[in-house]
Amino acid sequence: MLGPMSTTPPSDFARLRRKHQRGAYDRETIHAILDAAPFCHIGHIVEGRPVVLPTFHWRYGDEVLWHGSAKSRMLLTPGEVCLEASVLDAWVLARTSFNHSANYRSVVAFGVPRLVEDPAEKLAAMKGFLDRLFPGRWETLRPPTEQEIKATAIVSLRLDEASAKMRAGPSGDNPEDVSWPTWAGVLPVHTVAGAPEPDPHVTAGLVPPPAPLASPLARPAPSPRVA
Amino acid sequence: MLGPMSTTPPSDFARLRRKHQRGAYDRETIHAILDAAPFCHIGHIVEGRPVVLPTFHWRYGDEVLWHGSAKSRMLLTPGEVCLEASVLDAWVLARTSFNHSANYRSVVAFGVPRLVEDPAEKLAAMKGFLDRLFPGRWETLRPPTEQEIKATAIVSLRLDEASAKMRAGPSGDNPEDVSWPTWAGVLPVHTVAGAPEPDPHVTAGLVPPPAPLASPLARPAPSPRVA
Repeated sequence: MLGPMSTTPPSDFARLRRKHQRGAYDRETIHAILDAAPFCHIGHIVEGRPVVLPTFHWRYGDEVLWHGSAKSRMLLTPGEVCLEASVLDAWVLARTSFNHSANYRSVVAFGVPRLVEDPAEKLAAMKGFLDRLFPGRWETLRPPTEQEIKATAIVSLRLDEASAKMRAGPSGDNPEDVSWPTWAGVLPVHTVAGAPEPDPHVTAGLVPPPAPLASPLARPAPSPRVA
Repeated sequence: MLGPMSTTPPSDFARLRRKHQRGAYDRETIHAILDAAPFCHIGHIVEGRPVVLPTFHWRYGDEVLWHGSAKSRMLLTPGEVCLEASVLDAWVLARTSFNHSANYRSVVAFGVPRLVEDPAEKLAAMKGFLDRLFPGRWETLRPPTEQEIKATAIVSLRLDEASAKMRAGPSGDNPEDVSWPTWAGVLPVHTVAGAPEPDPHVTAGLVPPPAPLASPLARPAPSPRVA
């Protein structure tokens, strides 16, 4: 389990092997990165082979959730997964190819997800997914039908075995290389919203919600899950 | 093996299970998505558990490469991997939570990577990584030392078992929902470059290269690998 300011890995398996000085195991750091990443990457083992699929996620406290079709075998009978979410913040250019790097924030979490089956919890979770991206939008929508709820599978993973890894700051050349005559430094990367494209049925007075990725997206899901 | 315009999966394992109408198996589509994605997500099986780590990749023809520390067990003795790369293009807002979606482009590829051991191929591959992001920059750098080359491990995966999945276009409400009074449509997501931040040793006349992600990044690695 993650402590409030844990600096030790929750398990040996979750311990960073490479560049461990970039690692963190505390709850605040892990939560903030999960909230900033628009989507994540779930690794499963299927027929003995690794399978990684991208999917949207959201978070309540120490649980991270994702959803999909209720026909998905991977959701209905989940084995152990690895959830990875990453944000690229900048390209880091040095005077040697070896010292080129990137500024980024990433999380890796291991565990066996739980299928969310309680109907009230499931509906609250569906709302939580919308609330994370478009607060207040859920209330403006045509409410979900029973069939739509049944067609959706939602799973939840406790962040008991998770780690963060990140790099920030300037480029790092060796002292003997800094006079090499090429540009070195940081090229920031931002995610921004383009112009909204309303569908043909949008009538006057209806306005789009703010884009969730207008840099940075860093909102936790505001709805607590149903106890 | 991918055909030039293959519309059938290269294997049953690589066949899309969900929303297969969004799938493609042709070489051009798969290459273009890999070239557009700044980084990818590699799934391994470690001690019987799925592990997904983010990493930068680049491509020559039907091979995709990535690199890391020469101390990395996962690079030096690679088992089967799943490489996944995705680009988020837009949030797609409908009048029901169920019909919310995203426009995206993603690739999933399976296989056992090959460790790049030939010194000339390895050096060419290191240059290819820089060339994909910053064409012409390699020639301006302090050349790599033998030690730096030795400290870097590079692997290459043939795209023999790969698929693409994508969504584009407007939101898709059910006909009976289009008069529901809320905004619906597409909110595009763009990746743009921030202002370059030179390090303190950059002298007058040195200019930064163009940012590789100034939307969209879609350049294949120009250097052919050494045969």
